[in-house]
Amino acid sequence: MLSLDKVYHAAFKLKEVIRPTDLIYAPKINPDAEVYLKTENLQVTGSFKVRGAYYKISTLSDEEKAKGVIACSAGNHAQGVALAAARSGIKSLICLPDGAPISKVEATKSYGADICLVEGVYDDAYNRALQLRDEKGYTFIHPFDDEDVIAGQGTIGLELLDSLDDIDAVVVPVGGGGLISGVAFTLKALRPDIKVYGVQATGAPSMANAIKDGKRERLDSVSTIADGIAVKEPGEHTFEYCQKYVDGIVTVTDDEISTAILTLIEQHKLIAEGAGAVPVAAVMFNKIPVKGKKVVCLVSGGNIDVTILSRVIKRGLMKSGRSYQLNIALLDKPGQLKGVSKIIADLGGNVISIHHERASEGEDINGCYLRIVLETRNFEHIAQIKNALTDAGYCIVQ
Amino acid sequence: MLSLDKVYHAAFKLKEVIRPTDLIYAPKINPDAEVYLKTENLQVTGSFKVRGAYYKISTLSDEEKAKGVIACSAGNHAQGVALAAARSGIKSLICLPDGAPISKVEATKSYGADICLVEGVYDDAYNRALQLRDEKGYTFIHPFDDEDVIAGQGTIGLELLDSLDDIDAVVVPVGGGGLISGVAFTLKALRPDIKVYGVQATGAPSMANAIKDGKRERLDSVSTIADGIAVKEPGEHTFEYCQKYVDGIVTVTDDEISTAILTLIEQHKLIAEGAGAVPVAAVMFNKIPVKGKKVVCLVSGGNIDVTILSRVIKRGLMKSGRSYQLNIALLDKPGQLKGVSKIIADLGGNVISIHHERASEGEDINGCYLRIVLETRNFEHIAQIKNALTDAGYCIVQ
Repeated sequence: MLSLDKVYHAAFKLKEVIRPTDLIYAPKINPDAEVYLKTENLQVTGSFKVRGAYYKISTLSDEEKAKGVIACSAGNHAQGVALAAARSGIKSLICLPDGAPISKVEATKSYGADICLVEGVYDDAYNRALQLRDEKGYTFIHPFDDEDVIAGQGTIGLELLDSLDDIDAVVVPVGGGGLISGVAFTLKALRPDIKVYGVQATGAPSMANAIKDGKRERLDSVSTIADGIAVKEPGEHTFEYCQKYVDGIVTVTDDEISTAILTLIEQHKLIAEGAGAVPVAAVMFNKIPVKGKKVVCLVSGGNIDVTILSRVIKRGLMKSGRSYQLNIALLDKPGQLKGVSKIIADLGGNVISIHHERASEGEDINGCYLRIVLETRNFEHIAQIKNALTDAGYCIVQ
Repeated sequence: MLSLDKVYHAAFKLKEVIRPTDLIYAPKINPDAEVYLKTENLQVTGSFKVRGAYYKISTLSDEEKAKGVIACSAGNHAQGVALAAARSGIKSLICLPDGAPISKVEATKSYGADICLVEGVYDDAYNRALQLRDEKGYTFIHPFDDEDVIAGQGTIGLELLDSLDDIDAVVVPVGGGGLISGVAFTLKALRPDIKVYGVQATGAPSMANAIKDGKRERLDSVSTIADGIAVKEPGEHTFEYCQKYVDGIVTVTDDEISTAILTLIEQHKLIAEGAGAVPVAAVMFNKIPVKGKKVVCLVSGGNIDVTILSRVIKRGLMKSGRSYQLNIALLDKPGQLKGVSKIIADLGGNVISIHHERASEGEDINGCYLRIVLETRNFEHIAQIKNALTDAGYCIVQ
């Protein structure tokens, strides 16, 4: 049974391994609210998951500890369990689907876990983990639907109350629901007036749907850049806690998440993974009633693959009007590129790349295309450049 | 005159505006040392510069304050002065060269400064600022060679002593030398046994040269991705403080800096700018005697342009085998692209971009080139893909 005692006990145990993460004032996330970031991306292992895993392991008997633990995850939970087990002096085995990104496998290994790569997808790795648990007597550490794990995550609620007075609302990412269950339970027990909102990706709205329909259902598929919260089915316990303690669950799109990731990089020098950025996206895009409120966004983790990060940055720049791809149809005669360049330079646009190509068949035989990627100030600046080009007689395609 | 009193006074004044930044344990930076990161990239305005600027402004007379301040900078100093002035309720005017990145201009504006874009380079903007100072009576806030500014930066030394016991060494970026002067002065005054090392970019070694030669010289040019420390000439005061209090100044290359930036992103979820990453680069690449020592790397700022960040990430991925550019010479006949694509897909390579082009003159008239950028797992994976293509008869150029 989850209890406040258990959360306090978890907080006491966790002093051995976690760092109390910084709460950072973030005035530019939403000008109408007083926004703070709880930086669990700066937690050891790069996410909050080590809290639940370490506390869970601390509750095991000596016999259970001697046999070791097993988990199934390609992400933060794997790293959390690996570090928690290593720091507890016990063995851990992590099952991952064999297509898991090499960076995650390496990171998990580096924290001291043994790795079991399972052919297939997550569900195959999960089933293999349960099978190994039964065969070898390992303790299975569930990523979210376990009340000790939930109590561990709840310690973030205690830290929030310690570090900031008069919080109006806390905004929390939701995948399986372990984090929000712990945080909401803890906050409502101590300060029932604080609102707790959950955020999911529109491509993986399992808990949002469950709350709406009043029952747990399993999504056929999930699709979002926020892989850390791409969970098909809420937990049994976590669903109940969400029904009881959470004030609302909203969803954000991948584009909104990308913009939030980019904002955290530029404004706060913080790397958040997709799942970690959803609270910021929800507050930025007013998915939640925050006007005039003191709001904490729980940035749950920062383990984003750098190749995805590159794509997110590119997309975020495009979406916020700071990068723009111009396609211009030109007559293939000297001086055209110079004319275009001058207009762009005069208006303060910065050319990042140029691709210049003869037209394909079906087009004017004298024509060619110029594709220019520009660094721009904002949408207004883009419009200004486009208008100037059009006024000068250039034909912008697209 | 710089004094410990002044540094303490600065620390007292700065409580109104700065946040005491977190010190983060960073075990993977150098396995032979106990490394910590002082995260001034998480300071308000994204760098330590606000400390010196705010303290300097706090020492101005009412008359000086009424007239306002002026500074010349395209970077962190501009944002520091802008915010410091705004929070002090006074006007600031920042002169920038007109080629300054849009993002920096916008950021400076957003903190409340008026902007004066000056045609030319930094030196032109600097001269214009001095001219405006003389004409209008503004107080000029020097970016480093001012003892109040240095005292402000020195407050970081006090914070380090507050947050960590038994520090053996502190590693500090050096541009003009204001930061290291303040930190070294403070640390040596209170704990003379702590070593203080400076780090410059190999492309801008002005202070390193000055110390070596025993006199200040002006570099003809500077070139480094660490634009925040690309300073041609050390300050007069700062040179003296470095001579007196600094235990050594080393340099790091742009590749080392890029690797440090990528490491901070992947391991610590922190965005550092080039200048902010040089201490990490110096400790990673053993430029400093850190074996068995407790070492603090001062990550001085995080204001890196995202387009540059993208490039650094791309370079880091290439350097670590996680991205690869294949150049293949093909016969210009149907089916070739399909064949290549199949081999890559079967081996789990992920195509990022393709550029396909007829050969230029001087080449086989039937030839064409295929340039494919791939996401790969590691160097072994790259070799596997290249071998399979070669075995299938494709000719890999380069």
